[in-house]
Amino acid sequence: MKTPIPFYLQEILNKVRDNRDGAVADYIPELAKAEPEYLGAAMCTTTGHVYSAGDDEVEFTLQSLSKPFVYALALQELGLSAVRDIVGMEPSGEAFNELSLNRDDHRPVNPMINAGAIAVTQLINGVDSEPAARVERLRTYFSRLAGRDLLIDAPMRDSELEVSERNLSLAHMLRNYDIIQDEAHDAVSTYIEQCSIVVTVRDLAVMSATLANGGVQPVTGDKILDADVCRLTLSVMSSAGMYDGAGRWMAEVGIPAKSGVSGGLLGTLPGQLGVATFSPRLNKEGNSVRGVDAFKLLSKDMGLHLMSTDERYGVNPVRKVEQDAELTVIYLQGLINFNAAETVLYELMESDFSEGTVVLELTHISGTNRMGRRMLKEGLRRIRESGFDIAIVDPDGELEDRTMSDGTEVPKGELEDYAINGEPV
Amino acid sequence: MKTPIPFYLQEILNKVRDNRDGAVADYIPELAKAEPEYLGAAMCTTTGHVYSAGDDEVEFTLQSLSKPFVYALALQELGLSAVRDIVGMEPSGEAFNELSLNRDDHRPVNPMINAGAIAVTQLINGVDSEPAARVERLRTYFSRLAGRDLLIDAPMRDSELEVSERNLSLAHMLRNYDIIQDEAHDAVSTYIEQCSIVVTVRDLAVMSATLANGGVQPVTGDKILDADVCRLTLSVMSSAGMYDGAGRWMAEVGIPAKSGVSGGLLGTLPGQLGVATFSPRLNKEGNSVRGVDAFKLLSKDMGLHLMSTDERYGVNPVRKVEQDAELTVIYLQGLINFNAAETVLYELMESDFSEGTVVLELTHISGTNRMGRRMLKEGLRRIRESGFDIAIVDPDGELEDRTMSDGTEVPKGELEDYAINGEPV
Amino acid sequence: MKTPIPFYLQEILNKVRDNRDGAVADYIPELAKAEPEYLGAAMCTTTGHVYSAGDDEVEFTLQSLSKPFVYALALQELGLSAVRDIVGMEPSGEAFNELSLNRDDHRPVNPMINAGAIAVTQLINGVDSEPAARVERLRTYFSRLAGRDLLIDAPMRDSELEVSERNLSLAHMLRNYDIIQDEAHDAVSTYIEQCSIVVTVRDLAVMSATLANGGVQPVTGDKILDADVCRLTLSVMSSAGMYDGAGRWMAEVGIPAKSGVSGGLLGTLPGQLGVATFSPRLNKEGNSVRGVDAFKLLSKDMGLHLMSTDERYGVNPVRKVEQDAELTVIYLQGLINFNAAETVLYELMESDFSEGTVVLELTHISGTNRMGRRMLKEGLRRIRESGFDIAIVDPDGELEDRTMSDGTEVPKGELEDYAINGEPV
Amino acid sequence: MKTPIPFYLQEILNKVRDNRDGAVADYIPELAKAEPEYLGAAMCTTTGHVYSAGDDEVEFTLQSLSKPFVYALALQELGLSAVRDIVGMEPSGEAFNELSLNRDDHRPVNPMINAGAIAVTQLINGVDSEPAARVERLRTYFSRLAGRDLLIDAPMRDSELEVSERNLSLAHMLRNYDIIQDEAHDAVSTYIEQCSIVVTVRDLAVMSATLANGGVQPVTGDKILDADVCRLTLSVMSSAGMYDGAGRWMAEVGIPAKSGVSGGLLGTLPGQLGVATFSPRLNKEGNSVRGVDAFKLLSKDMGLHLMSTDERYGVNPVRKVEQDAELTVIYLQGLINFNAAETVLYELMESDFSEGTVVLELTHISGTNRMGRRMLKEGLRRIRESGFDIAIVDPDGELEDRTMSDGTEVPKGELEDYAINGEPV
Repeated sequence: MKTPIPFYLQEILNKVRDNRDGAVADYIPELAKAEPEYLGAAMCTTTGHVYSAGDDEVEFTLQSLSKPFVYALALQELGLSAVRDIVGMEPSGEAFNELSLNRDDHRPVNPMINAGAIAVTQLINGVDSEPAARVERLRTYFSRLAGRDLLIDAPMRDSELEVSERNLSLAHMLRNYDIIQDEAHDAVSTYIEQCSIVVTVRDLAVMSATLANGGVQPVTGDKILDADVCRLTLSVMSSAGMYDGAGRWMAEVGIPAKSGVSGGLLGTLPGQLGVATFSPRLNKEGNSVRGVDAFKLLSKDMGLHLMSTDERYGVNPVRKVEQDAELTVIYLQGLINFNAAETVLYELMESDFSEGTVVLELTHISGTNRMGRRMLKEGLRRIRESGFDIAIVDPDGELEDRTMSDGTEVPKGELEDYAINGEPV
Repeated sequence: MKTPIPFYLQEILNKVRDNRDGAVADYIPELAKAEPEYLGAAMCTTTGHVYSAGDDEVEFTLQSLSKPFVYALALQELGLSAVRDIVGMEPSGEAFNELSLNRDDHRPVNPMINAGAIAVTQLINGVDSEPAARVERLRTYFSRLAGRDLLIDAPMRDSELEVSERNLSLAHMLRNYDIIQDEAHDAVSTYIEQCSIVVTVRDLAVMSATLANGGVQPVTGDKILDADVCRLTLSVMSSAGMYDGAGRWMAEVGIPAKSGVSGGLLGTLPGQLGVATFSPRLNKEGNSVRGVDAFKLLSKDMGLHLMSTDERYGVNPVRKVEQDAELTVIYLQGLINFNAAETVLYELMESDFSEGTVVLELTHISGTNRMGRRMLKEGLRRIRESGFDIAIVDPDGELEDRTMSDGTEVPKGELEDYAINGEPV
Repeated sequence: MKTPIPFYLQEILNKVRDNRDGAVADYIPELAKAEPEYLGAAMCTTTGHVYSAGDDEVEFTLQSLSKPFVYALALQELGLSAVRDIVGMEPSGEAFNELSLNRDDHRPVNPMINAGAIAVTQLINGVDSEPAARVERLRTYFSRLAGRDLLIDAPMRDSELEVSERNLSLAHMLRNYDIIQDEAHDAVSTYIEQCSIVVTVRDLAVMSATLANGGVQPVTGDKILDADVCRLTLSVMSSAGMYDGAGRWMAEVGIPAKSGVSGGLLGTLPGQLGVATFSPRLNKEGNSVRGVDAFKLLSKDMGLHLMSTDERYGVNPVRKVEQDAELTVIYLQGLINFNAAETVLYELMESDFSEGTVVLELTHISGTNRMGRRMLKEGLRRIRESGFDIAIVDPDGELEDRTMSDGTEVPKGELEDYAINGEPV
Repeated sequence: MKTPIPFYLQEILNKVRDNRDGAVADYIPELAKAEPEYLGAAMCTTTGHVYSAGDDEVEFTLQSLSKPFVYALALQELGLSAVRDIVGMEPSGEAFNELSLNRDDHRPVNPMINAGAIAVTQLINGVDSEPAARVERLRTYFSRLAGRDLLIDAPMRDSELEVSERNLSLAHMLRNYDIIQDEAHDAVSTYIEQCSIVVTVRDLAVMSATLANGGVQPVTGDKILDADVCRLTLSVMSSAGMYDGAGRWMAEVGIPAKSGVSGGLLGTLPGQLGVATFSPRLNKEGNSVRGVDAFKLLSKDMGLHLMSTDERYGVNPVRKVEQDAELTVIYLQGLINFNAAETVLYELMESDFSEGTVVLELTHISGTNRMGRRMLKEGLRRIRESGFDIAIVDPDGELEDRTMSDGTEVPKGELEDYAINGEPV
């Protein structure tokens, strides 16, 4: 069998292909050469499955798509506190000044605007790093994210360096306010090298999935970033990633995202997916026209909107309850997080147990988190306090640590030890 | 057994109780009378379970906590297009002007700031509504959200009307730009009445859970808002709800939220939870000091951060696969959304089926969404195209419509019809 | 003989008449009724001579033309310090916010914008004044400025009150920041009454000349304002009077000025002239189109530009010097200010006096100022120190006090006492 | 005799000497070395008389004091239109953004801020000029203004180049918006060279007097700038010269002025004076503390306030009138501008002439302007139309062209031809 997902992606591409609005970015001569008809999409799950359609092998430069990843790398290398000293994390709202620096402390408002990105890049590989070493550090990092050796598009970089007046202006102002230490020219050229790293839409999806996956590259299994770093990065993407219209994007698409003037657009569903599109024509905000269309379709069609409330109905973690006069076995399933544990506890609370033993059967659960484990154990402890015996059946050790809040351990049983009304459970 | 959740909430409250920073709002004389030591928290699941701790019966006025709900009501009554004509949905960033109106079209930038909230209120019950009828409509609506009859705190309202110069200024400017039709005084007094509706922290949690639950009040089952309306409302809350520091809130807490100067603070986890706290002392941004602390703890402890990537690991929708030479039975579980379906399809794609029949067993799934159903059916169709027979076992009719993309139907079987190696499955 | 000045004014009007650009203000219904073809001009010297041409008897409302005069009245009544507590005196530059309030102290940036004018009006007749008494005080004051009883255009006032949302917004915000004490409605209605006072273009010229004349109405001789108050008022007019384009106006016209949406435009040459035009069609900044044209012509033609450097060449205060072996008589003329006195002193310093007596002859001087008098006396004292006798001929007592810095008096002589080479001087 | 003016200046310096508030600028290391106690003042009349007191021989760098002069040079070289294409002429008001560029066209708002000054400098000597040639052009120009060869302080220039991040930022942004053509580094270094030209406070006074004198250096008589250029430059100085507090400066001092961080401060009275002070300690706006104090004293004491209304009282251009039955001789004096001519015409209009001849005697007038001449001639023509003979006595040819508006000439007489009641006039 062939997976239908690429066909699905192709279908999305077909739906947006006829929108030829917008224009290829032309402020960098080399960018202006892009073939406007290119159209590709890719998807990567946190389980490392990659799907793509359309022009999925065409290479293009990262441009602003590099920003969230370099922010993540800075957080990884230096920690939040050091990074926050030089860049904020607020949305820029209606651009209130030419440079988007905070009025009071002159920090760039967030790392998704150029001033912020330039400031962040200067942190990589240590503030004292030589530019070349910093660039190589970045290239290596992006290569790990993509799972293959990525190169810098030298003509693009050179072309961009020629028209970097605005970025040089930002860099000098950052120097003026002691936000960066590097020479302005070095800062900008390092930043532009980072922007000139070449990827495909498949690379983008994989890189995005790495953020979704708590920093583990899902295809290679390479642990690149901490989960906390990913969470912070996605938070900033969600409020400032699509800066001209962050609120509208959140309302319409609901996926933390970032776009680049080369025509790439990436979105990240925490814990789930990386998605990317590629189509060079841009709207006036600088986002890929067909990319935006595709994300709207994907979000709606696939139910990816983070604020969507109707995707989570009816997951009952209690698969079934079997009981007789002396035993109650509660079979759980799915992910046991707070919500699931609450449901379990609620059922326990409502139940009119017979005397004897209460057993939680965990064989079919698909995972737990800290709060879920804590709640289950706390529920068991309270059941015991009410006069019952308790036990769990947990062949995969999902509960990890069985110590309860009173210091005692949850007893562990085997399913074959129990019988309801004489029948093995 | 007693549920441990209130004890858990109490524990959170105990951790934040000693933070006596900040001060009770005093710009409204009646507000200044609030007991600063009050401290309460509540939680309501989308399954309608309500838990609370501390001062959970103390009543206080909604103030700005009313804003997201009235925005939702306006969306419900008039649709997004009409509402967007009078209010934007962008974060306000660093407050760039006194009034937070868009520079070009003079609309308030979002409905979470006063100008926007005043504008939105004037839409309720029809733009031609008498103020009294509008207020009654609002009171009734909030009562449905809370699941009990809510009243207006008349002394508070009167006190606030006395010091409403700023709101009157906003209302007149909105009139000036034809954003609202009502007399400024009527507009402000309606808005203030809405702000003076009295709730407890338990009410807040339930109201918030209604947004989380796609508009169905989870305790009463009352269908109040459409799911789309809730999604839009939560989107705007996520980018503009905690306006002075939306980005930092998203990074640190990661829960769409709204605060009120009365000391209430509510957060909404789409599809999961409503959470609320109450503690009257405010920080300089006007948010409850201990409320903010409590949300940080709750978010971290309970894994509620929307951008968290580490809560979703390892949910395998394929419970087990049984097969012999002529039959493959694939047992699914959990919620079958895109992610789950992708996993199923991926396994199917990888599998080296024997000849014969492939059966998807859906008895233990806990739900589906459109994309999940579509993907399962498409996978089945493609398996059949590869030369197999297909069927589903779906006693609960989870797949809903069994028509596949080629117009044929997925055959339905019963589990007892199948045997693997002669054994019943 | 008939004076040619009205003909000159008529000539100016004829030159601008064909410019029918712009449109009559229509945001106030009553204003929209104005006859767009009206065109008038007037001029009043500080000696009280009034000239006019065109529609010089047509009455129109003051609108913003009232602002500098009410600012002057507030300064007169309360002094600069009290007035500066509620309004600044800076140009507003590119309007940086909706309300033009200072970012830090929320005072309106200057009294020529609506927020500032409303704040200033509330000071008149004491902050505790009843609105009606305040309005009557304003009406009486404007009547004194015009030299005739001025009335309020009641239909205009009522029409304007109907559409005063913007002003009400400002007033409420001023209340909010404790800049004004009155009820917002009272503040705005008082302000609008003041704006609805009816004048002709001749009145405007006379009122403007009163500012030019140091506060003495030049026709009636009524002393209305202190010279200091006029100087401050003209200073603020010069930097903020034509706010959208204050710099351009200063460069092109160079006359402190104020316009009103009724089509009036007034300019004040300190010490010299009041000028006014009337033509209702406005450009997009709200200034009378033909009024602006006429002022440009007048400024250039008449050499009225305050920054003009070429109008003052060659005024030699030393009319002639007569001398023989024992006497030097220096005949002065014109206004003896610092510049003139410097010239006199310079000549004295350069001169190779004969022995004997030095006499300053002041019969033909046209005036002095403090610095001029001081310098002359100091020069005389130094001449005496060099060994000469000194005296002045000052039949009109222009030197006022003859005490020099060493405490002695300048001796006074009579022209007939002196002879040069035997000839009477 | 020795002139008392230096003593007067010394007196002013003594009054301000004890104010030791503020601090020497230290952002440029070389500037920080300035002796804080230096204190000097100078004055230069449009007749070329220079007075000074205190540290009047100490040299310091121009810094921002160069701005108005370079603006003037650009106007002189390219004309207003070309200069306005790259820089505005509006006050900046409360600094509304980091760069003070217009929101729409990105031009610097005026030439008195750094962005504007850098842009203007790039125009000098042609936009294609080599930097070195441009600098030499500037140095030569400033030398002509000062009347002596000025040099560039190389250590200061080098020190400033080291800390020019902010200016480089501005220059790159100006390049970005195509406001300047030069490389950013060249633009800034040219600008800094200009700022590093070394002057004394006497030089400043002379340079300022050149602006006051319509572009003629009053000491050397060198015609450097057109009068129109000076008028425009002074206009911009008056609205934007003391940018943080332009309105307050105009109200308190009333003299177009410019300051530099080296401690210099210059003021220009059009047609009258250049004034300058030097004292290195700066207030927080960057203006010399004692310089500001001195200017306040000078303005008040000497009656230099441009908006002063009380310095011009009572200049009667009609010295005397002599008449008998057949002849009226009107003796004029002073400067015959519009105001004076109006007074003359008014007297003529009011007069009840005898029949016969009306003669205007111009021997004692000290000058005329175009409007004054026009008005006199028009008055004479009208007198003739009323049936009189007319003539002028104008030994110095002050009326220049005697052609009246009807094409005929004013007859010229000699004083000795006339007699009143048989007596020679």
